[in-house]
Amino acid sequence: MGKLTVVGIGPGDYENMTVRADRALKECQVIVGYHVYVDLVRERYPDKEFLTTPMTREADRCRMALDEARSGRDVAMICSGDSGIYGMAGLLYQLRGESREPEIAVIPGLTAACSGAALLGAPLTHDFAVISLSDRLTSWEKIEKRLTAAAEADLSIVLYNPASRGRPDYLQRACDILLRTLPEERPCGVARSIGREGESRTILPLGRLRDFEADMFCTVFVGNSQTEVIGGELVTPRGYRNV
Amino acid sequence: MGKLTVVGIGPGDYENMTVRADRALKECQVIVGYHVYVDLVRERYPDKEFLTTPMTREADRCRMALDEARSGRDVAMICSGDSGIYGMAGLLYQLRGESREPEIAVIPGLTAACSGAALLGAPLTHDFAVISLSDRLTSWEKIEKRLTAAAEADLSIVLYNPASRGRPDYLQRACDILLRTLPEERPCGVARSIGREGESRTILPLGRLRDFEADMFCTVFVGNSQTEVIGGELVTPRGYRNV
Repeated sequence: MGKLTVVGIGPGDYENMTVRADRALKECQVIVGYHVYVDLVRERYPDKEFLTTPMTREADRCRMALDEARSGRDVAMICSGDSGIYGMAGLLYQLRGESREPEIAVIPGLTAACSGAALLGAPLTHDFAVISLSDRLTSWEKIEKRLTAAAEADLSIVLYNPASRGRPDYLQRACDILLRTLPEERPCGVARSIGREGESRTILPLGRLRDFEADMFCTVFVGNSQTEVIGGELVTPRGYRNV
Repeated sequence: MGKLTVVGIGPGDYENMTVRADRALKECQVIVGYHVYVDLVRERYPDKEFLTTPMTREADRCRMALDEARSGRDVAMICSGDSGIYGMAGLLYQLRGESREPEIAVIPGLTAACSGAALLGAPLTHDFAVISLSDRLTSWEKIEKRLTAAAEADLSIVLYNPASRGRPDYLQRACDILLRTLPEERPCGVARSIGREGESRTILPLGRLRDFEADMFCTVFVGNSQTEVIGGELVTPRGYRNV
């Protein structure tokens, strides 16, 4: 029985991987993942075998990884960002069920809330909510309820999967929901292609975020009531006195 | 004018640092931080100068780092976990104000939401809120409102700073608030001393979390309505069909 390691590779560049994630990829025999993420690491680990599946075939990909481990090979399943946050670790545990074999190790990685915030300044210095706008696996009603609750509780908000080709207007819909509670001038930011070629950032008020053309490479940040743009950076104070 | 780099070192062990964070600490001249975090990295970077301040003197620590950079030295300000999430990046930008000098670079690190979740299984596979129970810089009323909003919106919840010597009963107070909305049997977990000596984890229902003796080394996870304990791990499904 081989070992299955779920590896969060962070935003995609080697620099933002942890020492532990790098070691896990060096030590395994087979790397399994969505083909876009596999392409991000392929050159650095040229002696590995790579197995890929298309984007929406998550369960197939996990079964493939579990089968490889059961056949005696050490497998690394890679996830972009973190291995757990919207990652594959949960599905692997579900598919393994009450069996304790194969052994599963979860190696965390930088999720876009961390890496995107660093690119924009410091928008998450205080409490925040992370909400995905993808309704592929969640109802839109639930997403809407979460957006409203987060805005009413004055949490900073990070939006994952703000748009895709099939959902070009979801960020606009989310902004319209937030604008029922939050002012148009609320400072926001978009981090795009974090740690990859063409990395960019945009800082803009919520009223303009509504018309921003986001895509699947974007992570969106909505400030709380204290968030400001200071020296060109998006900054949420923690509340330190005597500053 | 030197450069100021704010470095998230992750939970504390070298393995969970990013390649980029390690390089920044190798390349700087002075490392500034809270003495406990400085002690975590001191041995690995023995040729550096170290400057520390006590725990509650965050603004003094940031001014010290800015002054060192202004005097021409390359400074790394270290934060445990992420550099932004409850970290020092925001305060440094506030103190620097509209000046663009010294140059500040923010290097993200693994926050306890990522590293603690990986230790417990996969509790954050879906939307979640991160809420600190420290009322040193936030009113308890605001914390209470955020807890209630997160529970009502069926977000998984990560509690930072669940207790300290001066606030031994805050986790109990938070659980009592959550129990107005959530059932006693809701699966929860506590990650303690993540990536450090004595690392441990506890998985238990919300009704028992209430009486758990947490301390400042703990990060607490409260599941959403779908969270289960599977094969001994705390798992929140993302909602994949046909599993």
